[in-house]
Amino acid sequence: MTAPSGPALPVPDGLVEAFRDYERAAAEGDTTALARFVAPGSSTLAGDPHGLLVGSDAITAYAAAPPPRRLVQTHVQVTDPDHALVVALTEHESGGRGQQTQLWARTADGWVITAAHTSEPPPALDSRIWRVVGDPLVPGTPGGPLSGESVAVKDVYAVAGHPVGGGNPAWEAGAPVERGDAKAVLGLVEAGADLRGIARADELGWSLFGANPHFGTPPNPRAPYRVPGGSSSGPASAVSLGHATIGLGTDTAGSVRVPAAYQGLYGVRTTHGAIGTHGVLALAPSFDSVGWLTRDADLLALVGDVLLPDTAGPAGTSELVLVPELLALAEPDVRDAVESWAAAQGLVVRETWSLGELDEWRRAFSTWQAWEAWTVRGPWLRERLHLLGPDVRARFEHAATIDERTAERAQGVVQTARTRLRELVGDRVLVLPTTPSVAPLLGSDLGPVRGATLLLTCLAPLGGLPAVSLPLRTAAGLPCGVSLTAAPGRDRDLLALAASLG
Amino acid sequence: MTAPSGPALPVPDGLVEAFRDYERAAAEGDTTALARFVAPGSSTLAGDPHGLLVGSDAITAYAAAPPPRRLVQTHVQVTDPDHALVVALTEHESGGRGQQTQLWARTADGWVITAAHTSEPPPALDSRIWRVVGDPLVPGTPGGPLSGESVAVKDVYAVAGHPVGGGNPAWEAGAPVERGDAKAVLGLVEAGADLRGIARADELGWSLFGANPHFGTPPNPRAPYRVPGGSSSGPASAVSLGHATIGLGTDTAGSVRVPAAYQGLYGVRTTHGAIGTHGVLALAPSFDSVGWLTRDADLLALVGDVLLPDTAGPAGTSELVLVPELLALAEPDVRDAVESWAAAQGLVVRETWSLGELDEWRRAFSTWQAWEAWTVRGPWLRERLHLLGPDVRARFEHAATIDERTAERAQGVVQTARTRLRELVGDRVLVLPTTPSVAPLLGSDLGPVRGATLLLTCLAPLGGLPAVSLPLRTAAGLPCGVSLTAAPGRDRDLLALAASLG
Repeated sequence: MTAPSGPALPVPDGLVEAFRDYERAAAEGDTTALARFVAPGSSTLAGDPHGLLVGSDAITAYAAAPPPRRLVQTHVQVTDPDHALVVALTEHESGGRGQQTQLWARTADGWVITAAHTSEPPPALDSRIWRVVGDPLVPGTPGGPLSGESVAVKDVYAVAGHPVGGGNPAWEAGAPVERGDAKAVLGLVEAGADLRGIARADELGWSLFGANPHFGTPPNPRAPYRVPGGSSSGPASAVSLGHATIGLGTDTAGSVRVPAAYQGLYGVRTTHGAIGTHGVLALAPSFDSVGWLTRDADLLALVGDVLLPDTAGPAGTSELVLVPELLALAEPDVRDAVESWAAAQGLVVRETWSLGELDEWRRAFSTWQAWEAWTVRGPWLRERLHLLGPDVRARFEHAATIDERTAERAQGVVQTARTRLRELVGDRVLVLPTTPSVAPLLGSDLGPVRGATLLLTCLAPLGGLPAVSLPLRTAAGLPCGVSLTAAPGRDRDLLALAASLG
Repeated sequence: MTAPSGPALPVPDGLVEAFRDYERAAAEGDTTALARFVAPGSSTLAGDPHGLLVGSDAITAYAAAPPPRRLVQTHVQVTDPDHALVVALTEHESGGRGQQTQLWARTADGWVITAAHTSEPPPALDSRIWRVVGDPLVPGTPGGPLSGESVAVKDVYAVAGHPVGGGNPAWEAGAPVERGDAKAVLGLVEAGADLRGIARADELGWSLFGANPHFGTPPNPRAPYRVPGGSSSGPASAVSLGHATIGLGTDTAGSVRVPAAYQGLYGVRTTHGAIGTHGVLALAPSFDSVGWLTRDADLLALVGDVLLPDTAGPAGTSELVLVPELLALAEPDVRDAVESWAAAQGLVVRETWSLGELDEWRRAFSTWQAWEAWTVRGPWLRERLHLLGPDVRARFEHAATIDERTAERAQGVVQTARTRLRELVGDRVLVLPTTPSVAPLLGSDLGPVRGATLLLTCLAPLGGLPAVSLPLRTAAGLPCGVSLTAAPGRDRDLLALAASLG
């Protein structure tokens, strides 16, 4: 260790030894030994590329051992005989340099770290978020309305020159190189947006949380250590991180709206069928819709101007309808955020809907979705179910067991629900919590969250309705969303409304 | 600011105000005001994604103002009434989160920062290094000898589905999408290496330092705040950072060997003509050679096994020849590193060469290179010189003035030099400093360094000789290189020798 120049205090007794012990534990990846250096208490800090952890409990639960690296330089600044800052320049076995800054304090139990800050050299690309990325991958046509914007395309859209990966390595390995772009991709590039790259999806588009077992879970920058939301997880994280301004996704059961809510973004699911899905990897054609995410409402609307059909939608009002039974499906923190938002808007009508069939609708939605998913993917998957991650595999395995009569019954319920929902919404705008909760913590049991989330997110696909999710925050500062849903074809109205509500 | 829990000391007087003043200066990008918070002295530290700066002079000279961001959380740990650590979680205007850790100290002149550590959310890709990058961009053929390796291809090689960018945006915009891979690219992919991406080059391959004015200067991780070396700068930085294991470059006048030396990598320039350059953007066809960079000598040789012709080269010895006149062209720190390395090897012969013509050879090399460069690029450049960065533009402008007689005379000298160099080297291995100096500091005057560097690096292209650069370090710990050069066709011998010398 080099001593600081000037009138510096001597390096206190035991610090060098403690630092060496820490480094030995780091080199051995010994997390138990490393944990002993975390100062106990709620004010201890540990920041790394995943986020800032506050409190020794969070640090011991989430902080990872540093990757293999050696120290190139070590500097010590002693502030008093019981405290010193130790700054190390690190060279990583995998290449590149990082920095480790630690505030050490002497306690009765020896030297501990009260604050740590670790930087690591970033990878070439964050492969949790991206499959391919370029500066740009494909330049936008100059002079269009989306000039200066950049698009992260979910890896279910055809991009000329690349296979469609679909979030599964085996699918990707067998997929042909596409000869043309999917319609929505081409539309954005022709409108001037640069194609930034192809972003990760949950496996075959069938998940709401973004925890892809093959490529890793994309980060949620506004809610670290929580899931990003899926299945348009890569485009959502790319937009959150400013890697792209537009995330082009698909939404079958909530795959655009859920990551929008979890990450504090704007997101739209368009009217089913409004934007062609030729060149898009299907999941459940009755519900699959094109959608996108942005960090601001004006751009969300501008993309709609480019991609949506020019034909005028049905006439409608901007009357906002809040249904207490639906609001009650959300957890208190999200409900409060939506209530506060609604209270700040004009023209909000509270209306009681008779929703006794909601559970039945949700089950019918899931059954029909699964039936369609097995119809489109079964022929390829039949011999390859073992190549899927456990959650998506379980869903496809269940899908394979659905018999035709069950599927037809479900389809009947879906049609009833569609008619009923369209009647209920009428020419107004339904206000819903986008999801019932904030983004779940990584590693938590997602099964119950999935069911509760679908109860809210299945309404738009059941009705074939467009939906726009606006970002809100809970009292604790975590992202959540409020959704505006209206009659089919009212996409532009919703986008304009979202832009006016900001 | 939140106070730490437990028996914490109160936040000292004036610290909050000082921190606010700092943040105001940061928000305004007021570097003069920010500099006032840097504690004077040689032990002050400032680390950011560019590297760790030590001492207030270096910090004021090189540290940049933080990018636009807001503070999401601020934590203070007071160690004594005169010292406190302030940790802020930042949310960047461009997306994503970072962290700022600062140790503040009270001085007679107020509160100053003695150590700072700043993390920023990384971009989608480091566009100084990469044009396009994927996981992978193109998968290697399974089962080959290079399975598990990944290649950063200099943006002068054809890669199917992409234009060749050549390090210049106008060239890239007008370039056709390639329908096939250049031979060396295809060879690596067929041998199992994943194509990681297309990495930046200096403009049209004509520079030795890597300071591309359009895309920024790629970082030199082992020598921060110094140039990376060029023109294979992107592949070199990609290999240094572990983004790829193989950097495929070209070497006309040193474009592989210079970045190898500056970044502490292994690099090879192959015998002129040994590996076909069809599909490679030419600079000076008499000297252009395929080359590559790695972080270890075994892989450098393995790539040679894949790409080099199978035919046996000429017979030769491993006798190392050190020429004091050539060694004297290097600066003392590099000379010492090469001398120490040579002293550690067996069979080193010191030999005096009569090199009175060396300056003339170097001038003839540059003249003939420029003549060829204008011959191949002039037709496109004639109306587009203003689209080049100033250095490369000046070289092409000069190239345009060379008349045919001057060029022919230069070619004659080149031929004489070629014959003479081959005689001098014979069947032995010439040991040279790869470059006369360590990587120059960013912003320094590169003109004289260029001339001095070419005196050494022009020897291999003049002779049409293969050369392998091995990484060394100066006494100060900065990377430099030692080059092994031998008769044409002895590429495999040199690669094996480099691997045996480690």
